[in-house]
Order: sequence, then C-alpha cells, then structure tokens
Amino acid sequence: MTEYKSDIEIARAATKRPIFEIGEKLGIPAADLAPYGHDKAKISAEFIAAQDGKPDGKLILVTAINPTPAGEGKTTTTVGLGDGLNRIGKKAIVCIREASLGPCFGVKGGAAGGGCAQVIPMEDINLHFTGDFHAITSAHNLLAAMIDNHIYWGNELDIDLRRVTWRRVMDMNDRALREMVSSLGGVANGFPRQNGFDITVASEVMAILCLASDLKDLERRLGNIIVGYRRDRTAVYARDLKADGAMAVLLKDAMQPNLVQTLENNPAFVHGGPFANIAHGCNSVIATKTALKLGEYVVTEAGFGADLGAEKFFDIKCRKAGLRPDAAVIVATVRALKMNGGVKKEDLGAENVAALKKGCSNLGRHVANVRKFGVPVVVAINHFVTDTDAEVAAVKDYVSRLGAEAILCRHWAEGSAGIEELAYKVVELAESGQARFQPLYPDDVSLFEKIEIVASKIYHAGEVTADKAVRDQLRAWEEQGYGELPVCMAKTQYSFSTDPSLRGAPEGHVVPVREVRLSAGAGFVVAITGEIMTMPGLPRSPSAERIYLNDQGYIEGLF
Amino acid sequence: MTEYKSDIEIARAATKRPIFEIGEKLGIPAADLAPYGHDKAKISAEFIAAQDGKPDGKLILVTAINPTPAGEGKTTTTVGLGDGLNRIGKKAIVCIREASLGPCFGVKGGAAGGGCAQVIPMEDINLHFTGDFHAITSAHNLLAAMIDNHIYWGNELDIDLRRVTWRRVMDMNDRALREMVSSLGGVANGFPRQNGFDITVASEVMAILCLASDLKDLERRLGNIIVGYRRDRTAVYARDLKADGAMAVLLKDAMQPNLVQTLENNPAFVHGGPFANIAHGCNSVIATKTALKLGEYVVTEAGFGADLGAEKFFDIKCRKAGLRPDAAVIVATVRALKMNGGVKKEDLGAENVAALKKGCSNLGRHVANVRKFGVPVVVAINHFVTDTDAEVAAVKDYVSRLGAEAILCRHWAEGSAGIEELAYKVVELAESGQARFQPLYPDDVSLFEKIEIVASKIYHAGEVTADKAVRDQLRAWEEQGYGELPVCMAKTQYSFSTDPSLRGAPEGHVVPVREVRLSAGAGFVVAITGEIMTMPGLPRSPSAERIYLNDQGYIEGLF
Repeated sequence: MTEYKSDIEIARAATKRPIFEIGEKLGIPAADLAPYGHDKAKISAEFIAAQDGKPDGKLILVTAINPTPAGEGKTTTTVGLGDGLNRIGKKAIVCIREASLGPCFGVKGGAAGGGCAQVIPMEDINLHFTGDFHAITSAHNLLAAMIDNHIYWGNELDIDLRRVTWRRVMDMNDRALREMVSSLGGVANGFPRQNGFDITVASEVMAILCLASDLKDLERRLGNIIVGYRRDRTAVYARDLKADGAMAVLLKDAMQPNLVQTLENNPAFVHGGPFANIAHGCNSVIATKTALKLGEYVVTEAGFGADLGAEKFFDIKCRKAGLRPDAAVIVATVRALKMNGGVKKEDLGAENVAALKKGCSNLGRHVANVRKFGVPVVVAINHFVTDTDAEVAAVKDYVSRLGAEAILCRHWAEGSAGIEELAYKVVELAESGQARFQPLYPDDVSLFEKIEIVASKIYHAGEVTADKAVRDQLRAWEEQGYGELPVCMAKTQYSFSTDPSLRGAPEGHVVPVREVRLSAGAGFVVAITGEIMTMPGLPRSPSAERIYLNDQGYIEGLF
Repeated sequence: MTEYKSDIEIARAATKRPIFEIGEKLGIPAADLAPYGHDKAKISAEFIAAQDGKPDGKLILVTAINPTPAGEGKTTTTVGLGDGLNRIGKKAIVCIREASLGPCFGVKGGAAGGGCAQVIPMEDINLHFTGDFHAITSAHNLLAAMIDNHIYWGNELDIDLRRVTWRRVMDMNDRALREMVSSLGGVANGFPRQNGFDITVASEVMAILCLASDLKDLERRLGNIIVGYRRDRTAVYARDLKADGAMAVLLKDAMQPNLVQTLENNPAFVHGGPFANIAHGCNSVIATKTALKLGEYVVTEAGFGADLGAEKFFDIKCRKAGLRPDAAVIVATVRALKMNGGVKKEDLGAENVAALKKGCSNLGRHVANVRKFGVPVVVAINHFVTDTDAEVAAVKDYVSRLGAEAILCRHWAEGSAGIEELAYKVVELAESGQARFQPLYPDDVSLFEKIEIVASKIYHAGEVTADKAVRDQLRAWEEQGYGELPVCMAKTQYSFSTDPSLRGAPEGHVVPVREVRLSAGAGFVVAITGEIMTMPGLPRSPSAERIYLNDQGYIEGLF
C-alpha cells in the first residue's frame, strides 16, 4: 500500500499564496481585505454592499448520507470539488463553516478537509482563526450579564427568575458548566438561580450571524432574541434590555466573511458554524451570497447527513435568503455504505458487496429526498484505498437505477486531478437548467404540520407525537405571529429515525417531539426529538494532553 | 473656553499610516509582521529572537500619584511623552497595556490615552483587538475543564474537590458568575462543587504571559500553575494534568507583541494587561524587551499609583526580567492633588492653593519612594483647562524643594508640542547615568519580611498584621522552595494605607494581610490586604445600553 502523508504534513508542505493575491483573483481590492496574518482576510462590508445587483453564479450543495464512524468526507469533497471546478476552467469558490475550538481538545481531528483537499492555514482555522467565535461568545455573554444585572438592580421588566431561557456560552467542551446555580454568595452577587453554559456553536447569536444579510439585519435580529418570560408568560426581548446595539458592535468584524485558500490556491470562504441540530448547520448567508457575486460556481456544504443538513439548507437558509441551488452532490463512501448495511467497523477492510448493496438504501433515500426540493443530484463516491472495483461498481449500478450517476472521486489522494469527472458532471447538471428549487413546505401551514411534513417526506416516519403542552406552545407562538417561521429539527444525525442505531432506510417509525424552542432572532422554531447535547464533555484522555508546540514552533497533536 | 473635540472625534480625524510603514521605521521587515487589519500587527517570534545581544535603549517608567475620581492621565502622559521624545529626535516606542473588554460595557471610557495623546485604532484596542485576551480566556478555561474532567474520569491525581483553587474566567463584568455551584444535574455532569469566575485580566495566565520571556518559558510557567490541593495539602500542578502544552498552543499568537501607532504615527506596543492588585499590573516583558532592542527610548507605564504600580514594576517585572529603568515620571494633576488635599469633586473647578499644597504630600511621598529604587524622578503636571497659574506654581515650588522638577505638560491639548520640555528633561535624567536601580528588598529575606519592607518603606505603615494561618502558609511555601519569590501586594489603589478614604500621605497605619495566594506560574506570592474584587459587576445603567453602530458603521457610545 502507498505511504500517505498526514493532513498536517500535506498542509505544511503546501505553497501558500499571499491572501491579497487570492482576493485579487476574485476582484477584491487590497483595501477591502482586512488581513489576519498573511494568509487570512476579512472582506469589507463596503465591498460586499457594492456587489448588489450583480448576477449570481451557480450554487452547488454538497451533502451526504447519514454519518457513520467510518467517515464520509463531506468537507473534503466540498473542497475537492471547488478545486476540480477551478481545474476545468470555472471560477469556483468554496464556502464552508468555521471549526469550533472546544472539540479540538477532546478528540483529535480538524474541520478543514483532508488529504489533498484542504483549506489552509488549517491550524488557525481550527483554533482562534479570525476571532469570530470569540466575538460571538462575548456578544452572547454580554446579553446574559445584562439580564442578571437588570434583575439585580430592581428588575423593572419583571423577568421571572425561573424563566430566564438565555444561558451563557463558552467555546470549550466542559460538562461541569452544563447545570449550575449562579449568583450565590449573598446580596452583592444577585439572586441565585438555575443557570448553565452551552458551547458557543449552539448560541442563537451564531445562528443569527449566519442568517443575517448585513449589519443592520444582524442588529434587528439580535433585538428579537427572547431572553426569558414574565410570570404572565409574556416574552422579554434583548431589545427590552437595550443589548442589541452593543452586541452588534461586538460582532462588527465577525460579520464579515473570511477569505482563505485551498491547497491548490483557490479561494475559500470559511465563515460561521452553527450547530446542525438545534440550529441550521450551514455557513453564513453573507459568505454564500458574496461568493455568488464573485464566482461562477459556489460549492457549499451543510451539517450532518442530507436528512438534517440539506433539509435545513433548503428549508431555512435558502428559503430565508432567497437562494436557488442549481445542483446537489451527495457524498458516500463504500465503507460507510457497508456500515449502513450492517458491517462492523473492524470488518470494513474486507470486500462485502452484499452488505454494501443493502446499505445503499440509505443513499437511495437521500437521493430521492433531495429531488423533492427540485434540485438535480449526483453522487460522489469518496474513494478509500480499501475500496474494491466490485464495490465501486455496485454503488454505481445502484445509483444509475435511480436515474442518477455515481462518480468515483480521488481528490483526497490526488487533489483536483482526481475529481475532474465530478466537476464536469456538476457543470452539466447546473447548466442544464433542470433545477426547479422549492422548499418542502410553504410558510403558511401550521408549525406542527411543518414538523409532520419533514418527518413523513424526509424521514419516512409513520407518526409525529407530542404532548399537549408542546402542541399548545406551538399554537401560542402562531398566535403571537411566529407561525410563518420554518422548523429546525433537532434529531440524531445517525439515522433517518430518532433512534441512532437504526441505519439504512427505516420506515414507519415514530418521531416524538419532546420539546420546542423559539429562536425568534434566528427566525425558526426548534423541534427537539431526542437527547440533544449542547455542551459536550472531554473524553477520559483528551487530545489536549498530547497537543504542544514543537521546537520549530509548529503545533503537534492537533490533527 | 475653547471647544475641545472628544477623544473619539480626534481619533477618527487622525491620519493613520499603514502598519507595515510603522514597522519599517523600527526595522521590522514586513514578513515579520503579522497584520490584523491595516493598522495592527504582531511581531514574529523569529524576529524577536534575532534581536538577542543587541544593545538596549533607555527605559522610562511613567507612574502616578494615588488615583482619584479627578483622573490623572497616566496613559495619556505615557503616549504624549513617547510622541514628545520622537519630536525632539529620539527614536522612542511607547509600551502600554491592552484594555479589558468587560469594563467597556459598564462605565463609558477607553484605555488608549486621550485628547491628542492616544494610540489608535482606539475602538479595536478597547474591544477584541488582536484576540490576546480571548486566547488567555481559552487557555485558562481549558485548564479548568481538564481539572473537572480529570475528577470526572476517576481522579487519579486525588485532587480534593474542596481545594480546587483554579477558577474559570470571562472577559465580562458579570457578578452572577462570582460564586456558583457547578456540575449539577447528575452523574453525567460530574461532581458538584463550589466554583466561580474571575474577569480575564485577573487570570494567572495573564500574569504569566506578561512575565514570560518566550514561548518555551511560557510553557514552563504554565506547567507550574497550582490548580488545587490534595487532602494532604500537597499541590497539584497544571503539568500533572498535561495541560501546559495545549495551553501554550492556544497562546502562541497572543504571546507576540502588538504594534500600533500613536496619533502622531509613532510606534506603540500594546500588549498584555494583568490586574494591578492580585497581579503586577504591567505590560508584557516580551514587548518591553523587544522595544528596548528597537528604540532609543522606551516609555512604559504601570497600573494604579506608584505605591502599587511602580513598586511592582520594579520589584516584580524589572527584578525578574533583568530590566534597569533609567528614569521615572510621576504624573499628577492639580485637580487630583486638590482632592488629596480634601477638596470635593464638585469644587475642583475653583482655585484652592491651600488645599493643593496640603495634597502635595501624596506626590512628595511617591517621589521619595521611587528614589528608594535608585531611579531619578521628574514630575509631570498633566495640564487641565481649569488649572490656575498660582496652582501650577505651587506644585512646581513644592517639587523643587524635594530636589526634583515638576514640568507642566499640555500633550492632551497640543500633542507632542505640549510635552517637549518633559521630553528634554527625561533625556537629561536618563543620559546623566544617575540611575542605580535596585529592587526594594533582596530575594533571600522571608516572605513576611518582604511584605513588611514594602509596607514600611513604601506605605509608611506602622505594622503588618496577619493570622497564624497566614504566617504558617508563608512558611510552608518557603519550605517548598517558593521563599525566593517577590510579593505582590493587593491593596486599595486610592491610599497608601488599606483604607481607601485616607488620601494624602498617612503614617503609622496598620496593614492587615487577610489572605495569601501563591501564583507559582507567574512567580509571586500575593498578599491580600482588603476586599479585592476579581469579577466586577455592571452599574444600574451600563454603558452597553448606549453603544451601537451608527449609519456610517462607526461605533458610538463606547467613549
């Protein structure tokens, strides 16, 4: 077997171009790029505003089958396809999410692609990057401090101490902060109450930043955040606390998209990173829209599998931002399909065409689902060294019987040279004019119906259940004018069902809606269908124990 | 009376030079400057290492009388003197501290000088700047998460849950986080324990970053942090948790000094900002040492009045870093001296030479104190528009009888043109070779004696009192090898005594040492002599309520 270099070795060996040069390729003048070091930059608000009215490029979504421990390589394929499109002469821009810092210290691993399809500088992207997540943390926690401060000084707004819904956030895996009693220690420290922290990517501020069209819209949405309720159940907003202006000030720079480059020196926007369960899991609208003005092709991704990521991309991001995707790529690997067919992780090295065929049911349903949004589909088989010809042929055969095409991609090992075929196919689909994008449900059906439509059409569930309290809450929000909002499903990413162990394509299962939450600033209603962890913990032996600076000043142990 | 522009109006009207141009003046190649926008940059570790062995410039400390609500203008004078020295042909660099973000949302006000003596971009410096404080927050909280995680997974190090001394930090004024019980909610969230947050500038990581000579020394010091104790009172170190490497990785960029410019386009290093009570209150050693290699003159400041700031600058920073200051400037204002003489704030507008003369006792003692370190002194009278000629003459007369000179400075209104006389005087003192710097006490007296020496020689106290428990603790640390460390006095900044209302120059008072803390990573023992607040709160009507982005995208309400 060939010796492969590690991701970090490949990244360090790359020849980076100065970031102003990458910007120049896109027609961004140096004065409109605020550099962060020599290899990262933010694009100015003025430049972005000046693009208004220019024609848009083609928008390509990269999504995937349900994730398995085998790994699918969605970000890697997104980056690879961007390079592939540039290789065949299209001006393409990759748009992906920023990485959360906290999890890097738990389990080894980065979020900037892999192999020969990476965005760089990967160390920075996985650590502080341009400070966006820190700014979000600050803005979120300023609002939290203003809530307790308001209560401390007399509580003029009459906030019910027991009904403060705005928690605090930290970009860290820290289970000790999940549940606490704060304001202990006496009069000077306020009124003791139950409280807790989520990880920063779970902050509604993150979702807002990723859905806002500009700074004005950002400030408006921040003001709409519900921080808690009074005894009479009426909502208290961030605007009531006069927190929205200062929060917007803290987010002024974070709002601007970050420009970096791929290993092949093609432009990539890395901006925003909301959770894909209690939020919508896509990079920022402002980055995607700006990229559409500057590139012929924009390749973006959405969190988790297509049941969560693509559905939210279409029903929340595209609906709200007026985006019209031209084609979708569904990433699968032979290994992950075999796991969907029942093979254990330790047996993945052996050829197993029968299991693979069985597991293809998962892929097949995602293909059918994406088509329900009116978007043409191609399947990318992200090649792994142990894949056999028979296995690859079986996937291709399965997909062709769905009236689509599955293309073997070797971008991980070969970069853009390994993904040319997919790039040509994507261009063919996008330029065919086949796309007739429409969201899955209209704005004007009830919130519960929206949940039912997603559950039946996308998950193939038999029934959605919910307590009276949940249904009453949804109706109350409808009466308050929130009925037009889309729903944001918080479900396990491992299955179409709410049972993470049900791989493949389960049918007729029950989706229990345990809780609903209103993200009034972001503009969606979250339906929680299981245990959703919004503050991860560290494992027994966290990777932080093995991370250090080597004698050359390079970071070791992060990847 | 003349109409004066606000600080922010002056700052916005300034003509900034590209940061690479400012670096070029200092001989820093563009490749060794990592830009953050077009007006901020970090200096590379490689460039700094390459300066080793080059001769040092002159080091000038700017300190002040005890602070009063009238304001003294220490940072303004530091910046003004830097510009003044450049004006008279000396290559001078200003070295000041970074501002904490949290307090900006409490009471209006910035920390980048004022009037015509400011460092810019002041908005950035007062908000996220280059992300240093966020990095310190992350490194601090990673260690905290690793402590609770270690206990959660079995507590192999046998840490006593009740004796964890490492709290968490946030760069926010948030009284609700001062005292809490964390890890509530059941088995999955760990073992409930008393916990709390300090503001980031109070973090020992901040003090460490500001005292470390380079990244290697930083990592070594981080490993030395004591995070808590076992039941047998033996210490548990960050190194035992293997947290030091990952913390150093998080601080890699934060460790590099930040280059900005003054309104007159002269270089300024703004780097680090430890508390001046439980820490030493000076900008980073690495910034000061780098500036000494690049400039003929380095003008730096220390927190609070000279009793705290200058003493710690000399006894902690200079002692540990091997710095030898050449002259000191003590800043006073006529208004603040009148307050020291008993005048109320509302009566400061009226001439009152008698009260002024009485208040000069405070200035006189600081002059005598600084001379105890072998450093020649000049007094800067930071001119205020209401000062009368008789008042200014009275201060000059008082200081001349001490064998020193007091010079009227109009840098706030006039920039460098208003501070030429002080600049010439500073050069005269520094080049006279008068300085015979020595710390106040040697390394090898007991920790309690060190406290007594500072209290008697600097505070003019009659006695230092401490419980047996405090004295025993100090002796125990001496036995463990910490006896050589300097002491870091945590005392009110408003008085030479521990009573904040005792202005002027009190004598024979009692200094009660209530508590002692070991900052083993930073390398000092903190002696706490009163109520020291390490997590501020917000006022009834926080300035955050009035901060917003105006239609031009400028920040309003921050200053």
